[in-house]
Amino acid sequence: MKLLLLNPNTTQAVTDAVLVAARAAARPGTELKAVTGRFGPVVIGSRAENALAHHSVLQLAAEHAHDCDAVVLAVSLDTGLWACRELLKVPVIGMTEAGLLAGCSVATRIGLITYGRRMGPLYREIAEGYGLASRLACIATLDVTPQQTFSEPQAVRDAVLTAARQLVQHDGAEAVLLAGAAMAAMAADLQPEIDVPLLDGVACAVALAEAHANLKLPKARTGSVSSTGGREVRGVSPELANLFAQRP
Amino acid sequence: MKLLLLNPNTTQAVTDAVLVAARAAARPGTELKAVTGRFGPVVIGSRAENALAHHSVLQLAAEHAHDCDAVVLAVSLDTGLWACRELLKVPVIGMTEAGLLAGCSVATRIGLITYGRRMGPLYREIAEGYGLASRLACIATLDVTPQQTFSEPQAVRDAVLTAARQLVQHDGAEAVLLAGAAMAAMAADLQPEIDVPLLDGVACAVALAEAHANLKLPKARTGSVSSTGGREVRGVSPELANLFAQRP
Amino acid sequence: MKLLLLNPNTTQAVTDAVLVAARAAARPGTELKAVTGRFGPVVIGSRAENALAHHSVLQLAAEHAHDCDAVVLAVSLDTGLWACRELLKVPVIGMTEAGLLAGCSVATRIGLITYGRRMGPLYREIAEGYGLASRLACIATLDVTPQQTFSEPQAVRDAVLTAARQLVQHDGAEAVLLAGAAMAAMAADLQPEIDVPLLDGVACAVALAEAHANLKLPKARTGSVSSTGGREVRGVSPELANLFAQRP
Amino acid sequence: MKLLLLNPNTTQAVTDAVLVAARAAARPGTELKAVTGRFGPVVIGSRAENALAHHSVLQLAAEHAHDCDAVVLAVSLDTGLWACRELLKVPVIGMTEAGLLAGCSVATRIGLITYGRRMGPLYREIAEGYGLASRLACIATLDVTPQQTFSEPQAVRDAVLTAARQLVQHDGAEAVLLAGAAMAAMAADLQPEIDVPLLDGVACAVALAEAHANLKLPKARTGSVSSTGGREVRGVSPELANLFAQRP
Amino acid sequence: MKLLLLNPNTTQAVTDAVLVAARAAARPGTELKAVTGRFGPVVIGSRAENALAHHSVLQLAAEHAHDCDAVVLAVSLDTGLWACRELLKVPVIGMTEAGLLAGCSVATRIGLITYGRRMGPLYREIAEGYGLASRLACIATLDVTPQQTFSEPQAVRDAVLTAARQLVQHDGAEAVLLAGAAMAAMAADLQPEIDVPLLDGVACAVALAEAHANLKLPKARTGSVSSTGGREVRGVSPELANLFAQRP
Amino acid sequence: MKLLLLNPNTTQAVTDAVLVAARAAARPGTELKAVTGRFGPVVIGSRAENALAHHSVLQLAAEHAHDCDAVVLAVSLDTGLWACRELLKVPVIGMTEAGLLAGCSVATRIGLITYGRRMGPLYREIAEGYGLASRLACIATLDVTPQQTFSEPQAVRDAVLTAARQLVQHDGAEAVLLAGAAMAAMAADLQPEIDVPLLDGVACAVALAEAHANLKLPKARTGSVSSTGGREVRGVSPELANLFAQRP
Repeated sequence: MKLLLLNPNTTQAVTDAVLVAARAAARPGTELKAVTGRFGPVVIGSRAENALAHHSVLQLAAEHAHDCDAVVLAVSLDTGLWACRELLKVPVIGMTEAGLLAGCSVATRIGLITYGRRMGPLYREIAEGYGLASRLACIATLDVTPQQTFSEPQAVRDAVLTAARQLVQHDGAEAVLLAGAAMAAMAADLQPEIDVPLLDGVACAVALAEAHANLKLPKARTGSVSSTGGREVRGVSPELANLFAQRP
Repeated sequence: MKLLLLNPNTTQAVTDAVLVAARAAARPGTELKAVTGRFGPVVIGSRAENALAHHSVLQLAAEHAHDCDAVVLAVSLDTGLWACRELLKVPVIGMTEAGLLAGCSVATRIGLITYGRRMGPLYREIAEGYGLASRLACIATLDVTPQQTFSEPQAVRDAVLTAARQLVQHDGAEAVLLAGAAMAAMAADLQPEIDVPLLDGVACAVALAEAHANLKLPKARTGSVSSTGGREVRGVSPELANLFAQRP
Repeated sequence: MKLLLLNPNTTQAVTDAVLVAARAAARPGTELKAVTGRFGPVVIGSRAENALAHHSVLQLAAEHAHDCDAVVLAVSLDTGLWACRELLKVPVIGMTEAGLLAGCSVATRIGLITYGRRMGPLYREIAEGYGLASRLACIATLDVTPQQTFSEPQAVRDAVLTAARQLVQHDGAEAVLLAGAAMAAMAADLQPEIDVPLLDGVACAVALAEAHANLKLPKARTGSVSSTGGREVRGVSPELANLFAQRP
Repeated sequence: MKLLLLNPNTTQAVTDAVLVAARAAARPGTELKAVTGRFGPVVIGSRAENALAHHSVLQLAAEHAHDCDAVVLAVSLDTGLWACRELLKVPVIGMTEAGLLAGCSVATRIGLITYGRRMGPLYREIAEGYGLASRLACIATLDVTPQQTFSEPQAVRDAVLTAARQLVQHDGAEAVLLAGAAMAAMAADLQPEIDVPLLDGVACAVALAEAHANLKLPKARTGSVSSTGGREVRGVSPELANLFAQRP
Repeated sequence: MKLLLLNPNTTQAVTDAVLVAARAAARPGTELKAVTGRFGPVVIGSRAENALAHHSVLQLAAEHAHDCDAVVLAVSLDTGLWACRELLKVPVIGMTEAGLLAGCSVATRIGLITYGRRMGPLYREIAEGYGLASRLACIATLDVTPQQTFSEPQAVRDAVLTAARQLVQHDGAEAVLLAGAAMAAMAADLQPEIDVPLLDGVACAVALAEAHANLKLPKARTGSVSSTGGREVRGVSPELANLFAQRP
Repeated sequence: MKLLLLNPNTTQAVTDAVLVAARAAARPGTELKAVTGRFGPVVIGSRAENALAHHSVLQLAAEHAHDCDAVVLAVSLDTGLWACRELLKVPVIGMTEAGLLAGCSVATRIGLITYGRRMGPLYREIAEGYGLASRLACIATLDVTPQQTFSEPQAVRDAVLTAARQLVQHDGAEAVLLAGAAMAAMAADLQPEIDVPLLDGVACAVALAEAHANLKLPKARTGSVSSTGGREVRGVSPELANLFAQRP
């Protein structure tokens, strides 16, 4: 089985961290391929950057998804998730979606930790969009940037631990999702310090992608997730134009 | 007052229809400028086309918003609405958002008519995203394409009337929103046939944009709608890169 | 254009404050008429006073609305809002409704400040009734009376600032609505101190009333907002009895 | 125990029907007193009439509640319910509230039948206001007036039966509430024809009022239901002014 | 009238406390019978113990309900409530359900106090299951066991008072439900110390059971609460097998 | 990896069907063990039978879970799901939970088909309990019994197809879950006839159980899903008493 990990940001270090977390979670026979955006935001840290990243997600899917069994969106806002499901024939799993869905089977309410206060509402909107708002205990936002994860790992680690304990003790979280591709692989390290399961979005996404690739549910032929096919789009790469033009 | 009407689709006929509806609704002193996307979908008719259109919305905003008093997104999925609010200093109003908000002051529940069955869930998701799901009576989807609005106007007109009457009589709609930029200007024509207010998204958006431009609420300096500023994005037009790089 | 500002309380000072706020927000050509209740509560500060004020709202509407283009309810509980919409032929806008609807286009979640702890649940109920509960960040209630706004302006100003900052920093409010007719005109003064838009209900209501008066949506001929007409009511003023008796 | 049944409409026939239903439901030792509004709507059939009836409810409460052990609002929109709870020292029960609360212990979802299509949204709003929207299966509105209940009893009876069966078979109602004071006493007659419990709002309200009068829960001394006390209201009857002026 | 109080726990002291609270609330003519589980948990303090208690509830109902006019589940998780309603011909009332329903007529939002932090989510789930989540102000969990109620009454009393005051002052509770059969009878004692009504689940359940027994609503003949009848179950007591086998 | 499939009903034919579906979905290296209840309902078809089955679920878990890597509840009401999670150290997955969670990654809204009209509300309650109500398109109930699946397979097959098509065409389902252990293995057979993915609860549960067994999330040491441990329960089998008595 071959999984594509798709990071629409242009920061290779995030892709590398994602790949480490994915390898730790993947089954022995699962091949992993991780790709990085060539245009768009360096690291998504705002609504506008996320909006721009949609194009990059589609471009990466058009270039790399054709020979994979499933796609994991290695971007914690699950940018373009349903668009990819519509365009592609294989399962597509978002890392925050996966963290929440996996969390649903171990916890009644899930706490979420992410970078940057301004991003809190976006994760709340994502959870609401998945219809999972009632399973969200609370969102804690760290006062650090994704980049500091690499430059000041101990400070970020401490901030995550403090936030996680607060979510458990004060907000009733029975599991905690580390939402941020740059936090990939941190969960395993911090787990011994925390009394509830720490969910790594990439690990959960790999597990769900493997599960869906194995389940082989057919793609819908009707409804909002089915292929449109035969659509003309202009001013984009030939691969992407071709993906839109394909008929189901 | 100068309003920018921003159509991220590449179809000029839609921009023309939007401009007609906007002119009919605008106050005497309001200047209107309508622009059309130069890349991306011809007409958004799927999730993937909508995802792609985010880039086009941002590009048009970067090129044209600098000397306007408010921006109207003349795309019925309100593509990139909050991203534009974050990036720009002037009010930004989505046409479906405006139709729903204006409808809230005349009707307890609003019916919505749009093109294409596969698009129904997207409008439900939009209304839910605005926290207005309980004000939505029902969504009716027409079995016609936006293009047929221009090529077979009578058939589309009949389909809209049938759907509107069903929404009123069966689903308890007390107003009906025609959601689709290509339907702009149709409401005035059909209103005499329908017993409840027909809401034209473009007209409502122009009215709300004028109201907000006059209210002159300051832009937030904190939170998810505030400017990030000073952000590097790669591989995009100079105007857009510059817009991301600007500091508030 | 002529707007009627309708204050069902019997306190002229509140009407005066409302008129100041309305004038600051109105367009140049907009004429304003503000009227004060002649019976009922001095200032609404409880559920029972609000219940009683319904009659006063209807009476003022019956006396004064006939030659206006739109009506603004200058009472922060939006008392009798839908009843007036049913009875009158022109747009009717509530000041708290307007504050929330205008806030929806600048903030994902709105904080609300009002007088008196016992009134908090009433504003929550109003927001829920509008289907906007998910757009409400939190409600802060001041431990002061509306009357103190006039007698101890500095203390009230300080209390509002403290509450607004708490709503922004702790509750994630991206805009703050000052809900209370007696707070009308305070927003402009305090805005420089607060990092998110301060919404003045009266100003927002004037803007929305102007927008609706310009949109000229027809009145529904069916549904819960349509005119009943031809109804007999007893023991009320001739103007009010006549308004109920009118046929659409 | 003495219960006050308070009908703010000016139609004595409705009060009479209410009293019949109440007597059938009351315990042997319960004394019943039913009073009729002297001003306001003849029969509430619109939002504006309901708004006006608030004054009448308060007036009747001021005149008659002082020597009763509990009050039943014999008006199916539960007009002024929380206002009366704030003003009075004894339990106050609304007939639709009671029908829904009693229904909650016998059915997972409750259907509701009322008069007049325009009134459907008002009952939905009431149920939502009680936080009970998810317990409401569906609302069926009869194409008859309350007055026809007395003038064409067989036609109304047939319409109610048809609606009730539809609610059970199509909408999953496991109990059906007859919401309308004029329908009081009809439930007992129609019950044999319907496969689920028929809830009479008056009967349920009498039962709950007796239960609360016996429970003797103290009145809150804080919060939105506590007495304000010492409030001045103008231009109303001496009894009502006095009720507002009383201190707890 | 004869009420059965059914405690599926095997702790007689809890049944005794329940009976004291029930006697204080019951009308003069009401006969009370309280029974205790003979197998299953000693005191339910976890999800698994609650799951196991379902069998004990059914067994007690099969043995004792046949000659009663109504059944009260004297277990604060309302274990097996709808199952008993399906199996039995008489009204069945849960003590937490009753506390919440009675609270709905005196408070807009209700605080809930129970034993043990791990139990908080279960009460939230119960309230959500009743569709009453929006009427719940907050849940406070005591750091004591039910057993300590009898061994350290003063400490538990103090903990309850502290929690109740916090619910009122901080969380906006307008009534407080003491949820826990072992807390039965504590409300009357603590009421003078607290500014809002203290709801005793057993007292409320007795009052509602009396009300329903008097209302005599028929049992549904269709839907999820109707009798299945004629069902074979294996490996249970003869009384229980017989109850399942009975035809309606 | 070894999965335990746990059917609390006493019907071996259901266990057999479950095992067929599970084998078709399991990975090559996954060992399956399916066990059948020895007491309790023959086939759960009502609330009371489901209540009784809780004991049987716990008993089977106590007897068989000790040497398994994960447990699948092969009962479509997911009876005792969270209780098993609390008691056991390995992942526990419910078949309807799994069908809904897996469906969330392929469809915006999921239709559900089950046996027996009276069971519809129970599945709605389950979905609501998972916080997934907004992902549920509609529930269709077949007018056949689980037993007829084996005795009249063609009739049941036709009924399922009709219901599935209705869910897709009328209710907007983008996937359809066959909820009922007796329907296990039917999805693969019917899939070619239906335009959206058919979800088999057992297959989905096997896939999620494998995913969770591989993810190896630790068990929470606090909260409502953590082990209580050291609890005494009476009158149950030694295995079950021992499971409750174990300390974490």
